[in-house]
Amino acid sequence: MMATPLPGLPDRVTIYEVGPRDGLQNEKAVVPVEVKSEFVTRLAAAGLTTIETTSFVHPKWVPQLADAEELLGVLPRSGDVRYPVLVPNERGLDRALANGITEIAIFGSATESFARRNLNRTVDESLKMFAPVVERARAEGLWVRAYVSMALGDPWEGDVPIGQVVSVASRLMDLGCSQLSIGDTIGVGTPGHVTALIEALGAAGIGTDRLAVHFHDTYGQALANTLAALRAGVTVVDASAGGLGGCPYAESATGNLPTEDLVWMLNGLGVETGVDLDELVATSRWMAGRLGRPSPSRVVQALSPESE
Amino acid sequence: MMATPLPGLPDRVTIYEVGPRDGLQNEKAVVPVEVKSEFVTRLAAAGLTTIETTSFVHPKWVPQLADAEELLGVLPRSGDVRYPVLVPNERGLDRALANGITEIAIFGSATESFARRNLNRTVDESLKMFAPVVERARAEGLWVRAYVSMALGDPWEGDVPIGQVVSVASRLMDLGCSQLSIGDTIGVGTPGHVTALIEALGAAGIGTDRLAVHFHDTYGQALANTLAALRAGVTVVDASAGGLGGCPYAESATGNLPTEDLVWMLNGLGVETGVDLDELVATSRWMAGRLGRPSPSRVVQALSPESE
Repeated sequence: MMATPLPGLPDRVTIYEVGPRDGLQNEKAVVPVEVKSEFVTRLAAAGLTTIETTSFVHPKWVPQLADAEELLGVLPRSGDVRYPVLVPNERGLDRALANGITEIAIFGSATESFARRNLNRTVDESLKMFAPVVERARAEGLWVRAYVSMALGDPWEGDVPIGQVVSVASRLMDLGCSQLSIGDTIGVGTPGHVTALIEALGAAGIGTDRLAVHFHDTYGQALANTLAALRAGVTVVDASAGGLGGCPYAESATGNLPTEDLVWMLNGLGVETGVDLDELVATSRWMAGRLGRPSPSRVVQALSPESE
Repeated sequence: MMATPLPGLPDRVTIYEVGPRDGLQNEKAVVPVEVKSEFVTRLAAAGLTTIETTSFVHPKWVPQLADAEELLGVLPRSGDVRYPVLVPNERGLDRALANGITEIAIFGSATESFARRNLNRTVDESLKMFAPVVERARAEGLWVRAYVSMALGDPWEGDVPIGQVVSVASRLMDLGCSQLSIGDTIGVGTPGHVTALIEALGAAGIGTDRLAVHFHDTYGQALANTLAALRAGVTVVDASAGGLGGCPYAESATGNLPTEDLVWMLNGLGVETGVDLDELVATSRWMAGRLGRPSPSRVVQALSPESE
């Protein structure tokens, strides 16, 4: 298919793949480590260069990722693929450092309700918990990403004021984080809201060179929101191969933006990603077979043999 | 949910609802006329003001719409709701006029392959067939819409040059049509392509005041493409309640843009549509029950009680 650029978009976008962590952490049945390893390896072979692989959260909370060390032990560590790992606290950072991890992510919340439910803390308390994690990680030379979840709406609080998101985002970046991922955890956001939030973050000193966006497709808005974010200057987009995942502590937070649907749009726009769409679709189709249910990605469905 | 406008978008969008015709013409089991009538009536009650209701195609080709006269006979004709009907040829126009229809649509093709398969004619022959239909319709005071299908790609020909689409579109408008609906019948288009096509149509004298867009979500692109079209000045958007429908002569052409997902975005952007989203969702949920399968609309899924 011929590419037709749209003026004002970046030439290249980095896809931050979250399927193995954000996707598989919600599977009721634990996925065997061999399957996870093959999944990550095939995603890297398809051209994804940043793959959030697992989480050093306590196995009691997310048993699906209890095999973090084992998975990292068997993954081929290639020089040009980054494998960030989610780290909830200092104990998680210890495990990351012990395993030679060089990129970590912390998971903050823009709202008190979600901080309470996901982190069992107030927003203030969560920032106090993150401070020594980020400080020590940076001292050890690690790259640190901060998620700001519920940045475009909250299932308990409804609207989330932009000023509140900017405040939490600024405090996270002040801790020393390298990148901020704006999370529409329940997928309610729309393109004007996305644009206004990115502009407000820029006005507060957090430029698009330090931003990523993380959209859920719960209300079908993820790709339109991505287009708005790209127009606003963002060049890092989170997506999940095959559309795996959601959020275990927010019932309605289903449906990450499928990586394939994103790549289809970027290919059509002539925006480089380095991803081989056919290999990616084959990987998600294989993974859907392992999980025993079809992928929610429109592209995976459209390109699968049974629909041809 | 608070609305946040995006500069450069229209204040108001007219949704051209295609579910009853484009959606139900693909149902394997014929939907009873009582159900169709209730569907259309409820869509109008939800605030949709333009509802393409049925087609005067020969029942041999589309038996699902063989009840066109019967349906139109039982529909309450309110003064502020328009019920355009698809008319394939002069015989169809006779039926439209006999039934007091004041708005019709003709269904053209941008490509020879689809003209052959859908109309059993070359593009030239199809335009010759449409000419007397449009001429007589206009002489009778009817409003005439022209679809240009396969405008962003064709399953047999692949890429469709923009110049070719502009040429067919111009010839359709020269016949005297009032509105042109650009159809991405197989859903392969992306936002840059959409923008370039709208600009090329404008340069050829077909301004956005005479354009509508008709996107399919086969590859997940429909809403992002809609956003691009709105930015380019389009104010009429085709959508299908609950995401019903596709195209009976193109296997991969599944998935109209769901009206609910469109309304969610427009509500969030503060763009007026006059549609009550809750009533619309309730209507699509009811229709999904009649059809015996869940709606593919993300919004309908997210707002249905079983997912709450």
